[in-house]
Order: sequence, then C-alpha cells, then structure tokens
Amino acid sequence: MRVFVAGVDGYLGWSLAQYLVARGHEVAGCDLLLRRKWVEEAGSHSATPIRSIEERLAAFKDNFGKELIFREGDLRDYDFVLEFFRLFQPEAIVHLGEMPSAPYSMIDVHHCNFTQTNNIVGTLNTLHAMKETCPQAHLVKLGTMGEYGTPNIDIPEGFFTIEYRGRTDTLPFPRQAGSWYHQTKAHDSHNIMFACKIWGLRSTDIMQGVVFGTRIDEMGDDERLLTRFDFDQCFGTVLNRYCAEAVIGHPLSPFGAGQQKRGFLPLRDSMQCLTIAINNPPEKGQYRVFNQFEEVYSVTELAEKVKRVGNEIGLNVQISNIENPRIEQEQHYYNPDHRHLLDLGYEPTHNVEQELRIMLRDLSRYRSRIEEKKEVLIPDIRWDGTRRKSRFLAEASR
Amino acid sequence: MRVFVAGVDGYLGWSLAQYLVARGHEVAGCDLLLRRKWVEEAGSHSATPIRSIEERLAAFKDNFGKELIFREGDLRDYDFVLEFFRLFQPEAIVHLGEMPSAPYSMIDVHHCNFTQTNNIVGTLNTLHAMKETCPQAHLVKLGTMGEYGTPNIDIPEGFFTIEYRGRTDTLPFPRQAGSWYHQTKAHDSHNIMFACKIWGLRSTDIMQGVVFGTRIDEMGDDERLLTRFDFDQCFGTVLNRYCAEAVIGHPLSPFGAGQQKRGFLPLRDSMQCLTIAINNPPEKGQYRVFNQFEEVYSVTELAEKVKRVGNEIGLNVQISNIENPRIEQEQHYYNPDHRHLLDLGYEPTHNVEQELRIMLRDLSRYRSRIEEKKEVLIPDIRWDGTRRKSRFLAEASR
Repeated sequence: MRVFVAGVDGYLGWSLAQYLVARGHEVAGCDLLLRRKWVEEAGSHSATPIRSIEERLAAFKDNFGKELIFREGDLRDYDFVLEFFRLFQPEAIVHLGEMPSAPYSMIDVHHCNFTQTNNIVGTLNTLHAMKETCPQAHLVKLGTMGEYGTPNIDIPEGFFTIEYRGRTDTLPFPRQAGSWYHQTKAHDSHNIMFACKIWGLRSTDIMQGVVFGTRIDEMGDDERLLTRFDFDQCFGTVLNRYCAEAVIGHPLSPFGAGQQKRGFLPLRDSMQCLTIAINNPPEKGQYRVFNQFEEVYSVTELAEKVKRVGNEIGLNVQISNIENPRIEQEQHYYNPDHRHLLDLGYEPTHNVEQELRIMLRDLSRYRSRIEEKKEVLIPDIRWDGTRRKSRFLAEASR
Repeated sequence: MRVFVAGVDGYLGWSLAQYLVARGHEVAGCDLLLRRKWVEEAGSHSATPIRSIEERLAAFKDNFGKELIFREGDLRDYDFVLEFFRLFQPEAIVHLGEMPSAPYSMIDVHHCNFTQTNNIVGTLNTLHAMKETCPQAHLVKLGTMGEYGTPNIDIPEGFFTIEYRGRTDTLPFPRQAGSWYHQTKAHDSHNIMFACKIWGLRSTDIMQGVVFGTRIDEMGDDERLLTRFDFDQCFGTVLNRYCAEAVIGHPLSPFGAGQQKRGFLPLRDSMQCLTIAINNPPEKGQYRVFNQFEEVYSVTELAEKVKRVGNEIGLNVQISNIENPRIEQEQHYYNPDHRHLLDLGYEPTHNVEQELRIMLRDLSRYRSRIEEKKEVLIPDIRWDGTRRKSRFLAEASR
C-alpha cells in the first residue's frame, strides 16, 4: 500500500516508516524538521544521537533496500500538501505532523497560538488536499487519550449511545482536554468528523495513550536508524523521562500526588496498532475512533516499575514526587474502553518490565548525553502561566 | 460598567454599543472593519447605507453625548489587545469580533483556514490578555446554537448530567457543528472552558439563535445610527434574507425541504439578552452557557410569516424552495432548553409579525439598494466544495 507519513522525522514517524517498509508498504513522508528546533528551544537534545535527515534517508535505503520518498515542507502550506498528494497518490495518510507537547503549548500566548494554528491548519490542509486528490484514501490521524480528560464515567471509543430525558442518540463523547495542545487534538477531531460527513472521506482518529520505548526491532544495530528519545519537560513523555532519570541516578519525579492514571503503550505496540488501522480502512464517509493503549497505570505505579527494574540491573533508583506544574486532577476515576484494536487483532506486548530493561540498556549507552542536559528533567512551565522550577514535595513541605 | 465590545462595527456590535451607552455604561470597542470587505467580496453591500466609522463615531457622540472609545485593530495582534485592555480596564468584554458566516468559511481551503485561525486566535488572545490585565473581568462570548447541530435528544444549556454504565457525571454537551465557521465556535467554547478552569477567568458563552431585525429603538431617526443589514448568501441570515426578497418581489427561498428548525430572536432581544448577561456576571472561574433565542421555528414557518405580513402591507410575496447548497438534516428533532436568560429576567418580544412589519418598512426605503445586488440572494457556495447557483426546486424537478 502507498502510505504517506506526515511528521516522518519524529519519534513515531521515523519508527513507522521503518515498520511499514519492512512489511512491504511503499512509504513517502514529509517533515519541516521543527521537532529538532523545539527540543533545542527547550534546552535539550535527544538522548539517542539522531542523524541529519540526509543521513537517515541513506540509512533507510541501506537497510531496507527501498527509498523513503521524502520532502521537507510545511503542512501549513496548502500547495505543498496538494502537490505531494497529487504525485504520490497515497492510499493511507498517517498524520503525525503536529506539535505534540502540552507544556510547550502552555509557555505563553505565542506558543499557544502557534500550537493551535499549526496543528489545526495542517489538518485542514490535509483534509482539503485529500478531497481534491485522493478522496478514497484513509486518513489515520494521531489524536490523544488526553482529548477526553478524566470524566467520572467510563470513556467509550469516540462515541456513546445515551438516553437523555426519555430519548436516545449516539453522540460524540464530550472532550475536556487539559492543555492548549490537547485542545488542538479535540479541535482536529471535530474538524475531521465534519469532513468525513460532508465529503465522504474516511478516517481513523487514534486516541493514543502515552508511548514509551527506545526502539523497534527494525532498527537493529544500525545507530542511524534509532528514533529520537526526548527527556525534557516538553517533549519527554512521563515513562521515557523516568528512564532517563533512572540511568543518571536522578530521582524519578511523579507530579503531585502521582495518582494520575493514563493509558500507556510501548513504541512497538504503537507501530503495530497504526499498521492495523492502515490495513483495515473504514468505509467511505466513516469517521471512527480507536482508543490506542495497552493498559492503564498510575504514574506512581510506573515509577515503581522503573525503580524495580532499575534496581535489578544495578541502578540505585529513588522516587521523589515534585510539585505538579499542571492543573489537573491528581486522583480520579479512569476506565477507558479499548476494544476496537483488539478486535482487529492487536496483540499487546504486556511485558512492561521487559520493555523497560531494553530502554535502560539503550539509554545507559547515552548516559553522558542525558547528564549534559539533566536540568531539563525538572519542569518549570506551569499551567497558571508562571515559570518556576517545581520543587521536590519533601523539600517544599519542610 | 466599563464594557469592551470587540467587533463594534458589526451588525450586533454597533447596535450593542448604542444599547449599552443608553443604559449608562461606558463603552469602548475595536474593529478591523473586515465585515465591510467580506460583504464586498461576496458581491454585495448592506441594504441600509452604513456610514464610515468616523461618521458613525460622530453620530454616536451627537446622539448619546458620550464618546465611543474606538480603535481600529486586529484581535489576532496580541499586543493590540493587551494594550487596549490595559488602558480601558474593562469589567465586561463582549466578543463579537469573529468571522460569522458559514458559507464564507466553506468557499475553499483558504477561506476555511482564515476563518478558523482568525476566530480561534482572536479568542485566545482575548483570554491571555484578560489573564494579564483584567482577570476579574467577565467575557461574554458570542457562540451559536449551531455548535450543537441537530441531535436526536433535547439540547441543554452547555452541560448535561448523564448516567452511563451505572455512573453519573456532568459533562459538556457534545458539539456537532455544521460548517467550518460553526466549528470555530465549538473550538472557542472548548478553549474558553479550559481558560476558566485553569486561570479562574469567568465567562458566559452565548449559544445564540438566528438574529433578525433592522433596528433597535436607540437608533431613532438618525440614519447614521442604523446598523448594517446584509442579505447576501454569506452574511444575510435567513429571516433577514426573506425580508429583503419580499420587498423586491423575489420569491422567499427556503433551502431544500425547508423543515430545518432553528432558534430565532429579534435584534432587540439579542441586545436585551447580552445586557442581562453583562449585568449578571458569573463567579470567578465559572464558565456558563446560555442558549439565547426567543422561539424555535422551521424556516418554512418563518417564510409563511413573512408572506402573511408582506401581503398585508401590499407586497406580493411568494415562497419557492431552492436546492439546498448545504449538507444538513432537513427534517429533524429539535428541542433546545432556554431557561437561563428567562430566569435572569429576559422578556421575549414574542411578536415576530410586529418586528417583520418594522423590517419591511425599513427595507422598503432601501429597495433599490437590494435590487442592485439581487443576484446575491440565491446561493452558489455548496458544502460539497463545488460552486453552482441553487435552482428553484420546482424548476429543478421539471
């Protein structure tokens, strides 16, 4: 199948291109390489030493014997998107090309506006270009479980059938996103749902949980194929940050009470799930939602897992909660459905500890790169608009 | 009270400034005067001959003895918003400064992107500037009943308490907006709700029905005070378009089957309701939603009212449905709540026929201005992305 990957230089995109080409798909992708700049702006770098896009493309060809058709360009530039779709004629479009950080979007009004316009316009251009050039293609759009927030009821996959005052309807599940970034994913979902309805496009909107991991098997021993691994407050996801902390002897730092529950999945499962979505397109006009995660954990449960595995392999891992820079519920009900992907054949990894062992081993090779930027591990971007480093709660309460 | 009106040169804004100053409020406002350009782009002009902003401001001073503090500027320019709020220190901010047309937003990808970025960034800048300069102020934000779409259950005012799988929560009512423009209002609602939650701002989000009318009493006999009255496919609302059609002997043209139901209210009721909202601010951190309309009618019922009143005063009014350029349900359940404003003292006009008499009389004076642009009465912007004039259904079926 001809698969277009927007954001192919990113954490997920670069992995997905390899995962797909190894399974016989033809892959094209675009990127504006902004993630590299944003992480630099956040004062950090990838723990894994990632290569220039040119070197990456050469490594791709060397390892897989096929080109990754690549163009540097901006999804906000409609003509760029239109021309690329027209030439490549994608059968599936995987849209991973958005600014993916909640804290980055909360820095100030300019970062907020950039995040909202970048993400919304990129998706609107994608929808319009699909309508013009490949209306039969399947848009696999990366959303986030964070769109739903933490309601006090079960979270279905996108839609629910409810009775209200004696009448019944099936409606989109309400979105209560917790950052300007998460809001963009909710806005995208609404826009995509509308485009499917009026133009007969087809889309799978992926409400993905928090991804962790350093690699997929396809990367093998060629360091040039490694995907990026961020550990800063903006672009490092929680479990990835814990692992970076563990390898340099920094205490794992859950936010606040640490009882926030989220859905999590390893990078390899994310690749498996996206590929299942690609291989099983929806009907024309259908907009469907997959909740994509392996299991729900609290951020404290995960810290304890990292501690256990880290101590097994000889690291001395401590946990020390810090002030929560976010405004969010720290103790809440959380029970999201995740049947759709399982019904299509998703086989979850389940063994988080095994994945953590791989991660800690990989990251140990890059300990000095994490050490070099270790000050980015403790957040200072606060949801109340101020900028102040979170203190360890043990210190703050003294 | 010091009230800031964004979009003060518009249909509602110019009326509201007069309504408020006549009731002792101090009013400041901004506008980029884009509505004038958009209507020109749509090939039309206001039926009422509106004056330059300078002449308007002079007329305002002449009639009300007080200045309307005005600056021309762009809500997308954060520094402009910040400085104006800092100087004026508003206690209430009425945000009417968005691109308000569904068809305009559906023209093409560029109009879609403009609409979404203009509306979203203007609101985000307003929220951030409030937080910086006047966090106690009350944001009265113009949304639309169109955010909800036409679900098969009752529509509450913003939130509903539901039971789902044995648990209960109060959640935002799902939004299913029917154009790129209506989507922006849903996006705004989500963004504002979030800002109230994290920053303790207070806001009333107005889900307004379709407004009709040529005047409010404050405009008296000074033609310079008249508000604009659009009748083109983009900026003319349905009942206003019917009245323009009636005075030039053009058949009233409901879309499709004509059983689309919407909430409607006269311009004078809109002013009354907005003022009630301003005078009764919510608590700090509270985000509340008012469904703002007087009564629900189908677009055919309204056409019949215009026909009846028009024929009474000697016009020869016919009704002839046209092909629906939109993709929407033409027959549906519709039962939205509208208690909040009534509970705060809203006294609906109720007498639609009386309002129609005033409108037809006012518009008769400007018959030639409508005649001159009558080709804009029949839409050609279609939701499927094509551009083709709707035919009368009687002709189309021959």
